[in-house]
Amino acid sequence: MSELDIYKRQGFAQSVGIGERPALVLVDFVLSFTDPAHFGGGNIQDAIDRSVDLLAFARTRGLPVAHTRVVYADDGSDAGAFTRKAPGLLKLTETSPLSQIVDQVTPMPGELVVRKRQASAFFGTDFAGWLAWNRVDTLLVAGCTTSGCVRATVVDAVAHNMRTIVLTDCVGDRAMAPHEANLFDMGQKYADLMTSAEVMAAIAARRPA
Amino acid sequence: MSELDIYKRQGFAQSVGIGERPALVLVDFVLSFTDPAHFGGGNIQDAIDRSVDLLAFARTRGLPVAHTRVVYADDGSDAGAFTRKAPGLLKLTETSPLSQIVDQVTPMPGELVVRKRQASAFFGTDFAGWLAWNRVDTLLVAGCTTSGCVRATVVDAVAHNMRTIVLTDCVGDRAMAPHEANLFDMGQKYADLMTSAEVMAAIAARRPA
Amino acid sequence: MSELDIYKRQGFAQSVGIGERPALVLVDFVLSFTDPAHFGGGNIQDAIDRSVDLLAFARTRGLPVAHTRVVYADDGSDAGAFTRKAPGLLKLTETSPLSQIVDQVTPMPGELVVRKRQASAFFGTDFAGWLAWNRVDTLLVAGCTTSGCVRATVVDAVAHNMRTIVLTDCVGDRAMAPHEANLFDMGQKYADLMTSAEVMAAIAARRPA
Amino acid sequence: MSELDIYKRQGFAQSVGIGERPALVLVDFVLSFTDPAHFGGGNIQDAIDRSVDLLAFARTRGLPVAHTRVVYADDGSDAGAFTRKAPGLLKLTETSPLSQIVDQVTPMPGELVVRKRQASAFFGTDFAGWLAWNRVDTLLVAGCTTSGCVRATVVDAVAHNMRTIVLTDCVGDRAMAPHEANLFDMGQKYADLMTSAEVMAAIAARRPA
Repeated sequence: MSELDIYKRQGFAQSVGIGERPALVLVDFVLSFTDPAHFGGGNIQDAIDRSVDLLAFARTRGLPVAHTRVVYADDGSDAGAFTRKAPGLLKLTETSPLSQIVDQVTPMPGELVVRKRQASAFFGTDFAGWLAWNRVDTLLVAGCTTSGCVRATVVDAVAHNMRTIVLTDCVGDRAMAPHEANLFDMGQKYADLMTSAEVMAAIAARRPA
Repeated sequence: MSELDIYKRQGFAQSVGIGERPALVLVDFVLSFTDPAHFGGGNIQDAIDRSVDLLAFARTRGLPVAHTRVVYADDGSDAGAFTRKAPGLLKLTETSPLSQIVDQVTPMPGELVVRKRQASAFFGTDFAGWLAWNRVDTLLVAGCTTSGCVRATVVDAVAHNMRTIVLTDCVGDRAMAPHEANLFDMGQKYADLMTSAEVMAAIAARRPA
Repeated sequence: MSELDIYKRQGFAQSVGIGERPALVLVDFVLSFTDPAHFGGGNIQDAIDRSVDLLAFARTRGLPVAHTRVVYADDGSDAGAFTRKAPGLLKLTETSPLSQIVDQVTPMPGELVVRKRQASAFFGTDFAGWLAWNRVDTLLVAGCTTSGCVRATVVDAVAHNMRTIVLTDCVGDRAMAPHEANLFDMGQKYADLMTSAEVMAAIAARRPA
Repeated sequence: MSELDIYKRQGFAQSVGIGERPALVLVDFVLSFTDPAHFGGGNIQDAIDRSVDLLAFARTRGLPVAHTRVVYADDGSDAGAFTRKAPGLLKLTETSPLSQIVDQVTPMPGELVVRKRQASAFFGTDFAGWLAWNRVDTLLVAGCTTSGCVRATVVDAVAHNMRTIVLTDCVGDRAMAPHEANLFDMGQKYADLMTSAEVMAAIAARRPA
């Protein structure tokens, strides 16, 4: 028996399910996370590729859609503890090519673009307020990195009482071991793990296009 | 070369260091996390044992000390997404033995006891305000579980711009693989990893008892 | 023309209306706010008296109901800037009679009781999460004091994107000038001002008992 | 005896004092708040005029300085409850002249510029994190309007455990009655009321230029 069986014996990993009003967030699909010379690597490009259809589906079905970018001030006036651990983050300014959302998932007018300085899409942003205003009860999470901004966003989504679904094929990381380890943690304690195909099928069954 | 070397090439894992005013938080050292029949197991008891001297040291040196407990209402009126993933959490009520802090690290008068309903010590609590009022700039984190409430607390501590130190021998988890994976993530992106002996030596060198 | 006409010319005081899913919060109807020797006075008792029918109505119609109390630790470990301005607040501990909700509006099982240390019901609490979990889009606010915890709760409710309604006959204050001044501010910038009779009629028209 | 004497009898309005590390925030000194055709009027221009010397003083003494602006997305994707009460706010976009900080108090490089969508400088922003990173314990508040964004910022500053000082001659409002009523509330419950001359003298006595 695996040491991980203790999670099952202790009752973790119950399903939260998809509620009445899901929204989609794409976390940090920006240029610097597609380039291994900056913050990219691993299966991040795969996650972007798999998110294209998912985004089109969300738009067709009228799901609220949000995107996140990491954006620091040009003069570094908002640097802090996070940028001390990873100083390269400070290159991600409003106009730097590194912080622009990749062409494959360019936001459309009316979609929220969250500028954040921390790992979580919620911290120091109006993302929670946008979810409340749109009466969202379920957050579908795609993006990168699984072990960084996706994980932090998922933990905060649960704390904000969103039913939270991690789209396993639409999240990516620069290295596969943290990717897998964080999928495990999230599936046990915070979110349901579903493929984008499963999520789209579940929503399509309820919401005609 | 390990796939994890990509973190080094991308400039992660810089040191944040211990600042001028450290505080200690012991996360969820409560009875239910010492018992494998509830939420315990793995190296959690070891972490408690190693935290006893650390807590005594913090008290001797006058560091602000906080403890956290998970506490839900007796009638479950504050249940939500987190308790849906792990329904056993709802047993942790104000007066249940399961949610009492273990005798080895019983809080002293004047130490903050944070009651929380989410993984993070910060979410929906006054922990950040207490840190501000005490002018803390560095958070020393012990507790359990490494992959759950410790990780969530550490990510939020960084977001609140605390210099954050994870005491590697004073955090524990019900299974070792998530414990190790989360130490890796935290060390790369959020916190410095130090043993309690290293932290005590560093503080003792600056602050006479 | 009154100097206050400038608000009208600048387009303030538009109606937000009652949405699909209202909830009721009773702010700080605790014993110390009914006694002029502590924090009471003015029209606070009137507000409580008028809230009794409102609360009964909310329960009959199945509206989510929350209550707030100010509760500080017995040892003052969570004192801070607010208690420095008004040190008497520290008497409001978990078991003190002063911090108990008055008999007229005693919470029923399943209703949320928010323990707070700041003026706002939202700050450092899980109130926003409870609203999200219950899919509330409209917050009906009664309680005391109008110029203190009611005002702070209303401003935060708007920031959390709740449609916010102040029940003018169910909020009270220790002195009438601040009561009136704060009703003006809230009506202009944050909330709709309605009597409890108006609110009950509006909801009854839509939701059969 | 005035009805307001009840505040004194109940122990409000104690002094919080200026701590070891004050910072200055200028709230919403942007063009639309200087023009009575938009959100201006009253004594707002006076407050700006009086803030010029204060800002110069803060810079000379090395105090951390922050500015706030109200900024909504060009496409209104972040509209919500607040903009429903005051729809004109949606004109305040990143590049609109209406949301630019007035020339008299233009930010210098290294000073934080907080973009906010709610009344408070804290809500959905990284302002609290900036205060923590700079180890600020005292917030000096100038700006406009007294009854709106200044009041909301002050209440949140106290909740974040800042010692909070309202500079009475450096805050302004479109009408004087709400200005005065909110100075009263803040002085009783949240902040010390001081003139800019008093604050500058107090700091100068301790911190040589």
